[in-house]
Amino acid sequence: MKKLICLGTILFAACLGASAQVPEGQPATSNVRGAEYPRIHPDLRVTFQIKAPSAQKVEVTPGGGANGLGKGPFEMQRSPDGTWSATVGPVQPGFHYYWLLVDGFPANDPSSETYFGWGRQSSGVEVPDAALDFYDAREVPHGDVRIHWYRSGTTGQTRRVYVYTPPGYDADTGRRYPVLYLQHGAGESERGWTAQGRANFILDNLIAAGKAEPMIVVMENGYAVKTGAVSGAGGRGNEAFGEVVIKDLIPEIDKSYRTRSDREHRAIAGLSMGGGQALMVGLGNLDKFASIGVFSGAGGRNLDVKTAFNGVFADAGAFNKRVPLLWIGCGTEDNLIYAGSRVLHEALEKAGIRHVWSEGPGLHDWQVWRKHLHEFAQCVFKSNAKR
Amino acid sequence: MKKLICLGTILFAACLGASAQVPEGQPATSNVRGAEYPRIHPDLRVTFQIKAPSAQKVEVTPGGGANGLGKGPFEMQRSPDGTWSATVGPVQPGFHYYWLLVDGFPANDPSSETYFGWGRQSSGVEVPDAALDFYDAREVPHGDVRIHWYRSGTTGQTRRVYVYTPPGYDADTGRRYPVLYLQHGAGESERGWTAQGRANFILDNLIAAGKAEPMIVVMENGYAVKTGAVSGAGGRGNEAFGEVVIKDLIPEIDKSYRTRSDREHRAIAGLSMGGGQALMVGLGNLDKFASIGVFSGAGGRNLDVKTAFNGVFADAGAFNKRVPLLWIGCGTEDNLIYAGSRVLHEALEKAGIRHVWSEGPGLHDWQVWRKHLHEFAQCVFKSNAKR
Repeated sequence: MKKLICLGTILFAACLGASAQVPEGQPATSNVRGAEYPRIHPDLRVTFQIKAPSAQKVEVTPGGGANGLGKGPFEMQRSPDGTWSATVGPVQPGFHYYWLLVDGFPANDPSSETYFGWGRQSSGVEVPDAALDFYDAREVPHGDVRIHWYRSGTTGQTRRVYVYTPPGYDADTGRRYPVLYLQHGAGESERGWTAQGRANFILDNLIAAGKAEPMIVVMENGYAVKTGAVSGAGGRGNEAFGEVVIKDLIPEIDKSYRTRSDREHRAIAGLSMGGGQALMVGLGNLDKFASIGVFSGAGGRNLDVKTAFNGVFADAGAFNKRVPLLWIGCGTEDNLIYAGSRVLHEALEKAGIRHVWSEGPGLHDWQVWRKHLHEFAQCVFKSNAKR
Repeated sequence: MKKLICLGTILFAACLGASAQVPEGQPATSNVRGAEYPRIHPDLRVTFQIKAPSAQKVEVTPGGGANGLGKGPFEMQRSPDGTWSATVGPVQPGFHYYWLLVDGFPANDPSSETYFGWGRQSSGVEVPDAALDFYDAREVPHGDVRIHWYRSGTTGQTRRVYVYTPPGYDADTGRRYPVLYLQHGAGESERGWTAQGRANFILDNLIAAGKAEPMIVVMENGYAVKTGAVSGAGGRGNEAFGEVVIKDLIPEIDKSYRTRSDREHRAIAGLSMGGGQALMVGLGNLDKFASIGVFSGAGGRNLDVKTAFNGVFADAGAFNKRVPLLWIGCGTEDNLIYAGSRVLHEALEKAGIRHVWSEGPGLHDWQVWRKHLHEFAQCVFKSNAKR
């Protein structure tokens, strides 16, 4: 090899902001390979650092202006060499979107992986929770996450769906599995539940511990418009999602994977916008879905339980017999959704509609949704789904 | 649904730079959903546009300073509303990395998907080639691309590998397949060959046309250091890659997928740095690999064919009998690699080492590597591999 020059190895030198003196803390696991910042301190403060010698002002801004990182923007301080730094927190454990405002422009941090949220590829920082490891990649058998392409007649597109197949799926070729359709939130994509949510590791760990039924998890994109319609940006453009699920996606999944294709073995859940979609598509198609999960996704205001959703709740006894699991959860610090979610829960309770209500500390963020999936996955597809 | 409010749907309004009057051309297919820029004109000029009212100067810079977009940076012009625009080209067809320099800071374009290259998540623009559709998602059966996690004893990490399984893999459970190990270039990752290279669609199309053997394609990360070693940034940190392949990856793949595990049905190829790795790992382990592909990845300078690679070429007859396919390709406009590649080809030719040499117009970029894979995949795993 000495005399053969493989020039590819010297094609570039990356500028990842690595420094000779290693400061306190650890690089975030959400960083790109070799990047020392963002850096998590033992007390859960986070230090951000970039090089931008020609910029006049640089700030860190949490996704949405405020999230588990706190309320931003946070000003970064300039060093003489053009390095800018800011330390924030202590912050909340979990995954948090952020950007750098470089002279006001929302730029990604070159040191961070990107995560599709807020309608764009965004930076994100993973802050560990010393008390929780249910979403970590532990040394247990791992399922594959398959990127699967299929033709949607509804949208006229080749669409991409992420499909988790549980450990053992390829070895035990006679076995069929229940299927959970699991949706992301507004501004996110079919990649969110694995990249931000770690759904695959959550399932791997639960299955290894015997706490969840081995299941297939189908993660599609919640945005879909019919052929010829103009796809809107951001929060719009999801009008045809239900039709895609019923007409295109379920047949494709049942054809491509070893599913149990009866309604009892098919569930739909989602977070935020996806929770609303799970409720609409699920309750609207109870011949297809037996179980429904709504994670920080629905609020009832002046809800008339008798007439809502085409009267599906009108006969509580019939509903309870038909739906083994209606699961509704929300973080108590979720200012947008909590109050309305609680109203919905109470209205259903009063009407005798059996459901699981889960509330606990937490914002409108992925840490809550990881916990929701962790709870939901332990209830669904079990004949004795607990109240 | 009327009385039930799903707040998730109104959680945000995205700013994707969409405009009311639609100008000439089409949004690039590499854009995020709903983004109108970058925009490809019929003559292959490309218009970039962003909003950055507080910036003093904004430029578009091609990855590496110059690529198929031309030699940058390209100044963007400010409109009174703080929108900045630049039209460049006509440019080369294919995929090109780029960033926006916002007051000198290399920011991603919020309108672009991100593609891991140059050691970070980068913006990229896909410029169509009217004459080529071999890498498009055509209406043919699609294989899955599986994200697979496994434990590497060499690195002490849980590593992630992308595995293409061909159409029909799940249906025809008695069939076993040859395996191509396919590596990305410096600063890229295991995601590159599918996201930038479209390897899965190239294979889908070839298999549908009966032009390539249905095969499994394994795409790992070319960076690996041994347990306890410090992982370098950028172009360093790949010291243990060969050991990972031989000790960890091949056993994992042969255990997890229905492979044909003899050497005749295992090949290794790569681009740029990955081409050098394919040559080193392949020639160094001819008991494991029968076929090797080097895409813009190797140059011979003062090459002593008799002694190079531990003398593997010393006996041309024996080598030719043992290696059904040694494939070497390079673009003629690749200033970094072409001359050296040609020297290597000529030295091998002179020594009687049978190989395929493929040169044609092209830079050191993904459009060339797509073509290389397209050619290579038609030769490999065929007993009559052409000269």
